[in-house]
Amino acid sequence: MTAAEPLIAGVELGGTKCIAVTARGREIASRAQWPTGDDPAATLATLADWLTAAHTAEPFAALGIASFGPLCLDPASADYGRIVNTPKPGWSGADVLGVLAGDLDVPVAIDTDVAGAALAEGRWGASQGCPVHVYLTIGTGIGGGIVVDGKPLHGTFHPEMGHVRVRRAAGDAFTGVCPIHGDCLEGLAAGPAIAARAGQPAEALGSDDPVWALVAGEVADCLASLILTLAPHRIVIGGGVGQGQPALLPLIHQAAARLLGGYLPGHSLAALKRVIVQPGLGGDAGVCGALALALTALER
Amino acid sequence: MTAAEPLIAGVELGGTKCIAVTARGREIASRAQWPTGDDPAATLATLADWLTAAHTAEPFAALGIASFGPLCLDPASADYGRIVNTPKPGWSGADVLGVLAGDLDVPVAIDTDVAGAALAEGRWGASQGCPVHVYLTIGTGIGGGIVVDGKPLHGTFHPEMGHVRVRRAAGDAFTGVCPIHGDCLEGLAAGPAIAARAGQPAEALGSDDPVWALVAGEVADCLASLILTLAPHRIVIGGGVGQGQPALLPLIHQAAARLLGGYLPGHSLAALKRVIVQPGLGGDAGVCGALALALTALER
Repeated sequence: MTAAEPLIAGVELGGTKCIAVTARGREIASRAQWPTGDDPAATLATLADWLTAAHTAEPFAALGIASFGPLCLDPASADYGRIVNTPKPGWSGADVLGVLAGDLDVPVAIDTDVAGAALAEGRWGASQGCPVHVYLTIGTGIGGGIVVDGKPLHGTFHPEMGHVRVRRAAGDAFTGVCPIHGDCLEGLAAGPAIAARAGQPAEALGSDDPVWALVAGEVADCLASLILTLAPHRIVIGGGVGQGQPALLPLIHQAAARLLGGYLPGHSLAALKRVIVQPGLGGDAGVCGALALALTALER
Repeated sequence: MTAAEPLIAGVELGGTKCIAVTARGREIASRAQWPTGDDPAATLATLADWLTAAHTAEPFAALGIASFGPLCLDPASADYGRIVNTPKPGWSGADVLGVLAGDLDVPVAIDTDVAGAALAEGRWGASQGCPVHVYLTIGTGIGGGIVVDGKPLHGTFHPEMGHVRVRRAAGDAFTGVCPIHGDCLEGLAAGPAIAARAGQPAEALGSDDPVWALVAGEVADCLASLILTLAPHRIVIGGGVGQGQPALLPLIHQAAARLLGGYLPGHSLAALKRVIVQPGLGGDAGVCGALALALTALER
């Protein structure tokens, strides 16, 4: 936040818009934004040109890229830093890392937008001081980022928590909207699923709409499994749906407590209210995520 | 494995028996075994006396303790190294770490039996070279250990994967045997649940018994969620039930592939057969786990 901090750069590559910034810490020095087009070569070239110009004007010390996915994040793979198998037209195979970082001789870190958001919440937001923490976005889609000891957790692939299957409420016959799984979490509880259930968009639904209890139950089913597996110190619920309806988070707390059944020490309803929380950062979660990734690259 | 390796000590504290060893690597130098009684003070004192005598005879460089749980593993807690809230009579609150390590001036590591087994599989067995790997035991109970970059993963608590809720096969009305959750994974698919379903013990059931498809489906439901969350490089299935019925693992592979629906790159049926595997170590998984923990303490 001070002039003594090094200048860094970040790119948030989202499904509809992309943003490039330079910053010190998360204090933005310069910023540009474009729509994410159907031609990845053109979109990425625009971003790369902006980065090159910014770097020429005042060199930055590291670059962070927070991108929509799925992404190949295995450094040993020939596809490292590329988009894989996305339904977004034209983007499957797009070489995000290669084009954006190719000409820059600085440390670069690339990860999913949600891993970036998780890192940012850990550095500046609601997950500060937490050794194990998660960021779950519930919006047009559902995705999660997991951070362990300051590092995004990946096995052979990054988390795809939106596609976890969840248990259904008794009698709920909604078939779900995920083209692959039908009733995975994203297919049941993301924005398009809520709209399909309710016949109107999530943001038009009142806090007493019965859809929220279903959504909360499904999200909580996923979170209860996550808690029994990782017991994160913090789980931040972001995204347009996650943050749009104030009634949702308390319903998630109640459903998670009911599912855990008091079994796990330290996970009473009161404790769950401290574990499962709203983001500490505002609307710039994506950009902050890219900057947090840049700082990770710098510190590596 | 060579005489040049330092002498280390390990304690496997199981629900029915406990074993203490000294070893170089995992080559046992001395070994003793006792039943785990209902009086933790007496059982732990016997173990502590053996350790003290062994250390006096030939000093060991580190101690690893692989214990049944639940265990408090938060070093900042006053309960660190104690058993918490166990249904095992008398053992709630037992100070495993304090009694066993109290008089020894050596590095000590304590973790769950399954975290130890996971570490051992990573060091010597089926998970060698894997950055993210899991050990899931299916026996009298179900439990999991997760290792990330050579370190057992804990958030505010160690994994309790046996209590994850899973989706049921259509029409399956078995209510489950877990006293807390009913139909969590352990309540549906561990040995006592299989016996309750089938009317006879798991080891008496033929490979074509229809119970195996149900068990495989429930285990696979948990593993599919785990894969979509952590994408482990390896998942080792151990335990009396997990290793007792050769037909089970192929059924788990098929069910997991069906549940993942081809969505996740690198998780075809053929790939899942390489990811979800039998243990590489034999019957001494518990002792190997304690020794792997001792080596972790030594290397820290």
